[in-house]
Amino acid sequence: MKTLGHFLQTGDWKGEKHVPVIHAPEKTKAGEAFELKISIGDEIKHPNTLEHHISWFKVFFHPEGSKFPVEIGNFKFTAHGEGDIYDEPVVSTNVKLNKSGTIYALSYCNIHGLWENFKEIVVE
Amino acid sequence: MKTLGHFLQTGDWKGEKHVPVIHAPEKTKAGEAFELKISIGDEIKHPNTLEHHISWFKVFFHPEGSKFPVEIGNFKFTAHGEGDIYDEPVVSTNVKLNKSGTIYALSYCNIHGLWENFKEIVVE
Amino acid sequence: MKTLGHFLQTGDWKGEKHVPVIHAPEKTKAGEAFELKISIGDEIKHPNTLEHHISWFKVFFHPEGSKFPVEIGNFKFTAHGEGDIYDEPVVSTNVKLNKSGTIYALSYCNIHGLWENFKEIVVE
Amino acid sequence: MKTLGHFLQTGDWKGEKHVPVIHAPEKTKAGEAFELKISIGDEIKHPNTLEHHISWFKVFFHPEGSKFPVEIGNFKFTAHGEGDIYDEPVVSTNVKLNKSGTIYALSYCNIHGLWENFKEIVVE
Ligand SMILES: [Fe+3]
Ligand SMILES: [Fe+3]
Ligand SMILES: [Fe+3]
Ligand SMILES: [Fe+3]
Repeated sequence: MKTLGHFLQTGDWKGEKHVPVIHAPEKTKAGEAFELKISIGDEIKHPNTLEHHISWFKVFFHPEGSKFPVEIGNFKFTAHGEGDIYDEPVVSTNVKLNKSGTIYALSYCNIHGLWENFKEIVVE
Repeated sequence: MKTLGHFLQTGDWKGEKHVPVIHAPEKTKAGEAFELKISIGDEIKHPNTLEHHISWFKVFFHPEGSKFPVEIGNFKFTAHGEGDIYDEPVVSTNVKLNKSGTIYALSYCNIHGLWENFKEIVVE
Repeated sequence: MKTLGHFLQTGDWKGEKHVPVIHAPEKTKAGEAFELKISIGDEIKHPNTLEHHISWFKVFFHPEGSKFPVEIGNFKFTAHGEGDIYDEPVVSTNVKLNKSGTIYALSYCNIHGLWENFKEIVVE
Repeated sequence: MKTLGHFLQTGDWKGEKHVPVIHAPEKTKAGEAFELKISIGDEIKHPNTLEHHISWFKVFFHPEGSKFPVEIGNFKFTAHGEGDIYDEPVVSTNVKLNKSGTIYALSYCNIHGLWENFKEIVVE
């Protein structure tokens, strides 16, 4: 059957420049904000032009034992050369969790499609 | 391995109220705009409250033979009771294709997660 | 003082191709869904290329007598030639109101900036 | 005349909890990425619940002498209690400029509407 899930590509971000890197602590305290950073280009820069760029990141959290992931945020990079202005595919925000689980990052390149990564986090 | 793809649920929209319905012609002409409508609630209404609502649709197109899907649009429903105003999970836009392929719709309920559907379209 | 409001341009959509047109009934019934359509290009087409395109519409409603507008939706047109696919700046959704007021549409061209329009609607 | 610009509120973020704070250097080098951070709550926390929360930031840059602002990014905070998960209205990204000008931040509270702030930046 055709599913969108088949198009969610992944890989090692050290060698594949489309894979979003998730920067988060291994452990955090329940109800305490921590910095969650998602980036592309830590090792290999991706082009940033009108014709070819990273368009957005979506971030989800799946609490262990839950049936469903919850969307944390949607981060859209809009300037890719307009007025000689560039927004790079790097974003940080502050997140509070109350249960251990898995952070998922989804990214979209306007030419090379959808890419994902995940990172487990323990909430104490 | 953990992947976001595992969380993309689907089903028959006549019985499962979270599945987005794709309204598009079976055939269209290359380079000619057609109306593409995505909706939830054709058969069974989903709740529309601050606590529980359909948050957005993303629409992709996969041209046959291509490696990657292309995002067509992102449609965010923002009013779920603020000021007694409600935006329902229904959206139409106009799309031009030049190759046959598959339309994918992805929807997100803030409680029940991610749902998808697809529809093939022939471009003549 | 510098304000973003200074950059919200407007005009007659019959002569200025960036102004969003708001298609809505003059009157509607409280709590009953009506179709709200926003479009650019009814009279004069705007370019739709990677270099120059209408990027998104935001729609707000201001209930009369209220201090604040409420965001109804955010509609992002993502395909401007990738894979020879084009999403045109036209969107319809279904809205329920419970009070008379004013609909505002805001659009963004990646070259020519922000444009707005408004339309009053009576809720009976 | 009715304009959306009338609803763009502002104030001193030290006393008004809805005003986005723009953290950016006074000076930067042409074509060199710098960290741009936008936040609400540096001094006074805003509520973060399903009923009342900061929904998003939009960021624009107006190069001096230009007629139009360019959108840099759109940052949407999606988790406001679903699954006991919270995304706070804080975001950082990396931006490259090539001309001096003004950064504008626009924020939206689902109850108290639109708020803006600006900060000038010199590009050497
Ligand atoms: Fe790419
Ligand atoms: Fe649901
Ligand atoms: Fe334009
Ligand atoms: Fe507020």
